[in-house]
Amino acid sequence: MTETKSETTNKNSNTDKTAPIGVFDSGVGGLTVVREIMRQLPNEKIIYFGDTARVPYGNKSRETVVRFSEQIMRFLKTFRVKTIVVACNTASAYAMDALERDCDVPIIGVVKPGARMAAEVTRNGRIGVIATEATIGSQIYTKYIQELNRNVTIYGKACPLFVPLVEEGLLEDPVTDEIARRYLTELIDIDIDTLILGCTHYPLIRSTLGKIAGPDVTLVNPAYETARELRRMLTGMDLLGEDAPKLGSNQYQFYVSDMAEKFVTFANSIIKYGILSAKTIRIEQY
Amino acid sequence: MTETKSETTNKNSNTDKTAPIGVFDSGVGGLTVVREIMRQLPNEKIIYFGDTARVPYGNKSRETVVRFSEQIMRFLKTFRVKTIVVACNTASAYAMDALERDCDVPIIGVVKPGARMAAEVTRNGRIGVIATEATIGSQIYTKYIQELNRNVTIYGKACPLFVPLVEEGLLEDPVTDEIARRYLTELIDIDIDTLILGCTHYPLIRSTLGKIAGPDVTLVNPAYETARELRRMLTGMDLLGEDAPKLGSNQYQFYVSDMAEKFVTFANSIIKYGILSAKTIRIEQY
Repeated sequence: MTETKSETTNKNSNTDKTAPIGVFDSGVGGLTVVREIMRQLPNEKIIYFGDTARVPYGNKSRETVVRFSEQIMRFLKTFRVKTIVVACNTASAYAMDALERDCDVPIIGVVKPGARMAAEVTRNGRIGVIATEATIGSQIYTKYIQELNRNVTIYGKACPLFVPLVEEGLLEDPVTDEIARRYLTELIDIDIDTLILGCTHYPLIRSTLGKIAGPDVTLVNPAYETARELRRMLTGMDLLGEDAPKLGSNQYQFYVSDMAEKFVTFANSIIKYGILSAKTIRIEQY
Repeated sequence: MTETKSETTNKNSNTDKTAPIGVFDSGVGGLTVVREIMRQLPNEKIIYFGDTARVPYGNKSRETVVRFSEQIMRFLKTFRVKTIVVACNTASAYAMDALERDCDVPIIGVVKPGARMAAEVTRNGRIGVIATEATIGSQIYTKYIQELNRNVTIYGKACPLFVPLVEEGLLEDPVTDEIARRYLTELIDIDIDTLILGCTHYPLIRSTLGKIAGPDVTLVNPAYETARELRRMLTGMDLLGEDAPKLGSNQYQFYVSDMAEKFVTFANSIIKYGILSAKTIRIEQY
């Protein structure tokens, strides 16, 4: 499990296998990561937090994203979580170092698992990354991929309109096609063979992206890779949930900083498990 | 000046004509209001705050928008402003009552001046309002317009993609045309003759909106009406700045909660006056 070791700190103050996993995102996008965790680790409890009062993070500064992420980490720790998943590419890009420094349970972000898969699947060594302005500006995918493979070139492209288009529900729509064509053209022109969907909203327009990128480009979904990585890590640390949580044990709990009702509607459009409610909390008090 | 009285509280703890005007918005949109104030009231000093760490407000709840707006009011009051302009339709829709209750200088929002002009110019009594989800949901334009004229019908339409399209710079673009067509079709079909641009970003795509709405629809820009209203109010209270501020007196000062550099770039694309810098402050501490 050397891969896993490089991924996380070895600190672990919580060895209770039945403890929940904390997952957070700037809003609803991280639900694509939750969906993968539900599928791949069905015995785990999840505490999800979406920062819907301050969403989005992708156009904000490192300092601000770090401050927001630290508040959320403190909130999640009140549930005695056994690990924290940073289900937001921007927070993973900016805040992982700060979070790892201050956290006594292992933390896993979405960037490293996505970077690793891209480094593995590329054949021609040309990888495209589409993400928020902040994630692209941080060059974090480039850094991680080149740590694994020096002979790879990474081309980043910020796609700020994808999140609002997804949140408007224009998942299959000529406007989304047109915007995707504009964003992807320069990546296609330089002949990438691998494309990382570097924002948690993007898997929701995967079919549009696949159509425009064409059949020769492999799409990498960090949400999926993160759930796999999480499984490997929990197994390696002997922390994997062994039994399905008891009925009525609140296996999945959702917290937001605003607009709980709207969150629930969106969540139910993404996740098959019926989400009945989300609680609103004042995150800046943590 | 009965109009002005209904608009503002009569409290006034600051009778210094040379004191600055405080203006705030969720981000950069309020600069369209600042631009009008600069044009129409050239002798005034302005302290502007843009909440770029928590932008946008238009998809957030009343409670959250009120809390954010009150923090900003407390920040602006540290400059001993003589009045506060709420240059954000969402904050004007949700927070005016709370702000007026807690503020000892007059406050003016963008909604009432826009509503009044629309009620004046409509001939067929059918007024369309385009704005954020929050502003439309609040029904605030309907309420104000019907206070002035019971025989008018107001049709609201939330247009959540306009702000990201404007911030991406797609001011004249086929994609913006297409989205505008979708949003406006139902308003045009019910034969509105007046359209309120109920979000501070929208004047920046005025030409697109005018083209699609057609020559028979009058566009109302609340930013322009607000500056006129502000002039009337300051005149009525004998608070209008009489002389141009001295050179070097920092006539215009800009504060943000994040991303100061990007703010300055955007601001200089909107306002002719060269904005050299913006200061970043931690707004949640107020």
